[in-house]
Amino acid sequence: MKLYKANIIFTREKDHFEVLEHGYVGVEGGRVVRVATSAEAFGDEVEEVIDYGDRLLIPAMNDMHVHAPQYRNQAISMDLELLPWLMNYTFPEEAKFSDTRYAKRMYSRFVRDLWRFGTMRSAVFATIHLESTRLLMRLIRDAGMGALVGKVDMDRNAIDALHESVDEAVAKNEALIAEWNDPNGLVRPIITPRFIPSCTPPMLRACGSLAKKYGLPVQSHLSENPSEIAWVQELEPESRNYGDAYDRYGLFGQTPTIMAHCVHTPDDELDLMTRRNVMVAHCPTSNLNVSSGMAPIRSFLNRGVKVGLGSDISGGHDLSIMRMMVYAIQVSKMYYRRDPGQRFLTLSEAFWIATKSAGSFFGRVGSFEPGYEFDALVVDDSDLNHDNYSLLHRLERFIYLGDDRNIAVRFCRGQQIPEPPVFD
Amino acid sequence: MKLYKANIIFTREKDHFEVLEHGYVGVEGGRVVRVATSAEAFGDEVEEVIDYGDRLLIPAMNDMHVHAPQYRNQAISMDLELLPWLMNYTFPEEAKFSDTRYAKRMYSRFVRDLWRFGTMRSAVFATIHLESTRLLMRLIRDAGMGALVGKVDMDRNAIDALHESVDEAVAKNEALIAEWNDPNGLVRPIITPRFIPSCTPPMLRACGSLAKKYGLPVQSHLSENPSEIAWVQELEPESRNYGDAYDRYGLFGQTPTIMAHCVHTPDDELDLMTRRNVMVAHCPTSNLNVSSGMAPIRSFLNRGVKVGLGSDISGGHDLSIMRMMVYAIQVSKMYYRRDPGQRFLTLSEAFWIATKSAGSFFGRVGSFEPGYEFDALVVDDSDLNHDNYSLLHRLERFIYLGDDRNIAVRFCRGQQIPEPPVFD
Repeated sequence: MKLYKANIIFTREKDHFEVLEHGYVGVEGGRVVRVATSAEAFGDEVEEVIDYGDRLLIPAMNDMHVHAPQYRNQAISMDLELLPWLMNYTFPEEAKFSDTRYAKRMYSRFVRDLWRFGTMRSAVFATIHLESTRLLMRLIRDAGMGALVGKVDMDRNAIDALHESVDEAVAKNEALIAEWNDPNGLVRPIITPRFIPSCTPPMLRACGSLAKKYGLPVQSHLSENPSEIAWVQELEPESRNYGDAYDRYGLFGQTPTIMAHCVHTPDDELDLMTRRNVMVAHCPTSNLNVSSGMAPIRSFLNRGVKVGLGSDISGGHDLSIMRMMVYAIQVSKMYYRRDPGQRFLTLSEAFWIATKSAGSFFGRVGSFEPGYEFDALVVDDSDLNHDNYSLLHRLERFIYLGDDRNIAVRFCRGQQIPEPPVFD
Repeated sequence: MKLYKANIIFTREKDHFEVLEHGYVGVEGGRVVRVATSAEAFGDEVEEVIDYGDRLLIPAMNDMHVHAPQYRNQAISMDLELLPWLMNYTFPEEAKFSDTRYAKRMYSRFVRDLWRFGTMRSAVFATIHLESTRLLMRLIRDAGMGALVGKVDMDRNAIDALHESVDEAVAKNEALIAEWNDPNGLVRPIITPRFIPSCTPPMLRACGSLAKKYGLPVQSHLSENPSEIAWVQELEPESRNYGDAYDRYGLFGQTPTIMAHCVHTPDDELDLMTRRNVMVAHCPTSNLNVSSGMAPIRSFLNRGVKVGLGSDISGGHDLSIMRMMVYAIQVSKMYYRRDPGQRFLTLSEAFWIATKSAGSFFGRVGSFEPGYEFDALVVDDSDLNHDNYSLLHRLERFIYLGDDRNIAVRFCRGQQIPEPPVFD
């Protein structure tokens, strides 16, 4: 067993932090054995103690919604509305991923940047292309990081270069599943219909069948903005709501499911999400940038709906999940301003959402409780810690003020992860 | 005359950027002579050409509302509501500035951080203390940067250590005015009643008299949240609105005036601001963090009210005015979502607000038009510019994604500004 010594902070429950000043976490076989305040608590089986001094040791970040092929478009053309932005920037960019050389250039940078910001697990949308999706999975695996990667399925309402037949989509998915569906793998496939307006009923049906047949998770978009919701109602007139439209195709919790956004979720959809245990990927920067609105996170927590945070590059502009915590708190404060009954998120709640709650989608990930996979960040906040700050104020300053420079060491499943290479 | 060569971007009007690819700006006596696309345009008087290659050259940033003594509290205790936050963190921290050694430690770091983020001019609240306010002014002057620095005036509703008599306040202000009121000085005093709840009528009257007697500008807080506004109405029952309460004491545009926040500004107050040419310091991160709400920036622009951006440390958590532009755009998009008639801010509008509009409070600052003081940043965005981005997309990526690492060189009034020292 290896022991890591540092100022350990994590969340077992959302209401408060567990704090071990100069504490120890014991790790064996990639998993946490336990945390303790003295090395003696670990008995005789300690092989090595690695002392990070006065640094902080926290669980690594999880990004529950991110479009890898939109990496180039990160932080450009934020003045455009959703539709021209999709048609002029997003779809043409995704079409370039038929070229694996281009894909390698961009995807290797994307993976390097996930690493920079301490995101060790993510739920990723790729494109419709088999080869470049395979390449992305390899890049993440070679980096030693974890991800659910979705070849995107879509056959309508985009541009010709991004349409494929249902048979093609199924064949490509099955090729990836054959290669990657190892239950112990850090990188695995996830069934990814883009969203209902992009998928004909046969495509949605095929996606639901694939998820069921291979027991695979599902990710898509839900209730991001009012005109999208109205469009879905037109396309699926028999559905009671947008979520129900997915549900009819077996894409709403029949297997573990992540739905991004949920900004304008009506009550009956929320009920269905609760019953189906669907996770919300809350993407606050994207919701602001694309003028979608603000998602009612407190309502989700009150109902027991699982929530994680997503950068949603490139609707979102920032890959840092620390920054997403800040935005999630700020958005919740705007709800609170309107309705003081909707308490704003505390720091520990935002942290728990980003780590333990989100991480649950990948297994036992996102905490330092016994049996959890050791995904962790060593935070060197010495430039921020210029006065006698408490450990929790140091954590808060790292989250609000810090950046990639403050992340000294990254672990995924017990392995220290070096900077992934970038290719041209 | 010196010529600086780079990719020059600035805003003459708010609706669009002026872009000179590999252009030149000529500078003499600290001021811009003109910009041009070739060196020949400057004739024979060119002494030196400094070539920044493919970098961007933009006007420097202006922070129109920032509390220097709250530097230590930046990004802590964001879970608290306004009142306990003031009483438990803000006021006790400000009281420490009776100790000039402590002040030097914190203020030197504050000035260094303004520098880091390319903020060359700022409108700063200090504390009630004469010696440490003088020290802050010296630190900024010695750094070569510009500021309006206010000794804060307050005599009620805080803690004893931050109360002073009107006579004391006047005497301290006059001491600073005698030393610092050079019309050409980069660092000058500004009359700074904290806000109406902190100042008795005699204190407000004294502040108005000082501003009038010495022709000095004024800064304070206005209409930040509904309970504050109700409180002001109780304290000043004859006033028609919060702004009118200042106006009755000669503190609302009788001399140039900045009012921070203006989140819940009623129409008649806005009319008065328009007539009095009062500048709004829009502080979007602070307004979110402290649950104040969102200021209606589009309404201000439509009425011709001048606006600048403020970090409002430590209600705000981030000193970067680039980040304030992003937040200002995002907040305006939430207005737009509710009312599509309220168009959201474009990037050029946010940039113009942060540079030329804000800079107008310091004279001819914030643009590269002829006669403007040369306050500028050389931006090295090579790490962000990994593909064939346009110059405006490069600027957008710097604003949304960049940080202090991307600011290679800073100028204030024509002088290159080295990193200011930090003292312990």
